[in-house]
Amino acid sequence: MIADFIYNTPTKMFFGKDCVKQLPNVIERYGKNVLMTYGGGSIKKIGLYDKVKELLSGFNIVELSGIEPNPKYDPSVITGAKLCKDNNIDVILAVGGGSVLDCSKAISVCAKYDGEGWDLISEKVKATKSIPVVDIITLAATGSEYDAGCVISNTAINDKRGYVDGILFPACSFLDPKYTFSVSKWQTACGTADAINHVLEQFFAKPHNAFNDGVMISAIRSLMANVKIALEKPSDYDARSELMYVCSLACNGIFSNGSGYSGWPMHAIEHALSAYFDITHGAGLAIITPNWMKEILSENTIERFVTLGKLLFGFENLSDFDMANKVISEFYAFFESIGIPMHLGELGVKADKIEEMADHILENDNTLGEWVYVPLDKAALVRILTASI
Amino acid sequence: MIADFIYNTPTKMFFGKDCVKQLPNVIERYGKNVLMTYGGGSIKKIGLYDKVKELLSGFNIVELSGIEPNPKYDPSVITGAKLCKDNNIDVILAVGGGSVLDCSKAISVCAKYDGEGWDLISEKVKATKSIPVVDIITLAATGSEYDAGCVISNTAINDKRGYVDGILFPACSFLDPKYTFSVSKWQTACGTADAINHVLEQFFAKPHNAFNDGVMISAIRSLMANVKIALEKPSDYDARSELMYVCSLACNGIFSNGSGYSGWPMHAIEHALSAYFDITHGAGLAIITPNWMKEILSENTIERFVTLGKLLFGFENLSDFDMANKVISEFYAFFESIGIPMHLGELGVKADKIEEMADHILENDNTLGEWVYVPLDKAALVRILTASI
Repeated sequence: MIADFIYNTPTKMFFGKDCVKQLPNVIERYGKNVLMTYGGGSIKKIGLYDKVKELLSGFNIVELSGIEPNPKYDPSVITGAKLCKDNNIDVILAVGGGSVLDCSKAISVCAKYDGEGWDLISEKVKATKSIPVVDIITLAATGSEYDAGCVISNTAINDKRGYVDGILFPACSFLDPKYTFSVSKWQTACGTADAINHVLEQFFAKPHNAFNDGVMISAIRSLMANVKIALEKPSDYDARSELMYVCSLACNGIFSNGSGYSGWPMHAIEHALSAYFDITHGAGLAIITPNWMKEILSENTIERFVTLGKLLFGFENLSDFDMANKVISEFYAFFESIGIPMHLGELGVKADKIEEMADHILENDNTLGEWVYVPLDKAALVRILTASI
Repeated sequence: MIADFIYNTPTKMFFGKDCVKQLPNVIERYGKNVLMTYGGGSIKKIGLYDKVKELLSGFNIVELSGIEPNPKYDPSVITGAKLCKDNNIDVILAVGGGSVLDCSKAISVCAKYDGEGWDLISEKVKATKSIPVVDIITLAATGSEYDAGCVISNTAINDKRGYVDGILFPACSFLDPKYTFSVSKWQTACGTADAINHVLEQFFAKPHNAFNDGVMISAIRSLMANVKIALEKPSDYDARSELMYVCSLACNGIFSNGSGYSGWPMHAIEHALSAYFDITHGAGLAIITPNWMKEILSENTIERFVTLGKLLFGFENLSDFDMANKVISEFYAFFESIGIPMHLGELGVKADKIEEMADHILENDNTLGEWVYVPLDKAALVRILTASI
């Protein structure tokens, strides 16, 4: 059964070798004044910075560099919005990973708003105008290049928000797998874990349907197989291209058209972890995944585990609960095999903050909402975090 | 490996029970003057005509009815374009199946062109302006509600054209599965066969990748399972909804992002059949499918058959060629089981036209092009048609 939904992704995706050659034609549609945003300089090391400057030699480029992982409202979004206003910017070109793009999406609406930008990001006020965002993505992970969301931290008020609105879709995204060849083993593993988790957050939902199940299982299988190849051979174009494409679809929502909304509970938990300890998002998700699965396993949820066991892993001749437990072990072993330490303590998370983080999760994300696949109260959150430590 | 591609689907999809309630809000964005297009009146029988008129009571509605299956440039497209010009139409609302929508797409560009509309459809002139098209689709089949193509016949010059251009994407598509409950068994079977064939045309391509394979196999499996339920219980919402959703994706192109382009050879052959004998498109495709498969089966293509055998049908312990032949028999048996007569002769196709049709195919579709998955010369086309008769 396909449950009711509304779906729209206006983003135009350019994928493949040297697709950025088409950048000038695309940018030209919007105007001459470009805000180019990027992070700590990895795009200079891989030659992409020079490539973009060469391609856009006929444009007026203003730069915003140094955008942080877990991008901050102050200074990055505020500075970017001001640059847009001061320079009459026509289009924002984000070059980098998900953080650079997320920050640029936030800038795109704040630049067209006269009030306090945080009111848009915290969804007190609905954005009605934006500057078009074009991106060249250099990391296969968050899927920000093909979704309508961004995650922004406001350190002044100790807040980290996932902000989702159709206005945040990029106008055009350029995905050239070769720009991911230099991504470290750690980031490759964590980016893939993030994307696998995106699929699982959508898989564990009610209602669900056999078509989406098949699509999501194909996505997880592809991610699991190709990350192993990319870790072994970082310049393997075939593996990097499949990782890049599947990651971009994994957070778009198309995998769950017609499925129920699960509430994304593992993301709710992980956002607290990275707010408190600034750990790498994908690593946190990988560690939480098997422990969240153990927590929610019951007669009510067993069918999802059995479907994964049979269709993803090909398990046979096991009782339902044995199969479910084997599925959980398999994910644990997989994440461990790609180099993720499977205990939060190894990432610096302190056990004495578990209670506080559980309260923080309940305050910031509705893990008890009636739409949540399996509601999680404070005791459940504490159990998951304690098992993960 | 994901081969280079550019992908964009701007269409907003509204899916589910009573989604048409949102029609006035959507139409209002474009203006007050609406051209409502439909076919022979089945939308009146199912109450959809009255529903639309009630919902759009505040709008100026001009009607174009009687659009034919295999819609004609003259009179339907010409008449519709003139109605748009004469009535200052802001938006076209297509209510019906793929033919009504295809005709409306052609009208949308011809209405904004001062020259001969056929020059746009035959792609002599590139369309640059169009009237937005919104549709309420009542048949799960062609996928026109989510693609950028239309097929239009010009009987005066004995031509039938598939016209594809990004400008032809509908602005919004409304898909309520209950409007397909009254679709006849014959149209249900033929519509599903059409969609299965759309997937197969994309599956038999080079290069291909494991992610897309999994998606396409999930789509074919879903179509095969749900059409059986819908034929048994025409008002089964679950089955009708999954058919409707999967059909809409099957012709969109997203299944073959990163795969090679096959040339859509079965469609090339079927277009000649329906041009000569006006047979039902999906039935023609179903009959051709196993015979095209037999024709192209070789060492070079065997992997595709084996992948279908293992992943779609779960065949085991067979030699590659035995498995391939079993896949072909399985498709034949499936189409037969849903009520499609598996010989073209039963649909009125005459064997003495085979040579002429083969020439027609070679003239109108490049089945020999270097991008075609397996090039087909005249002798091959004659073999396929002869085996299908």
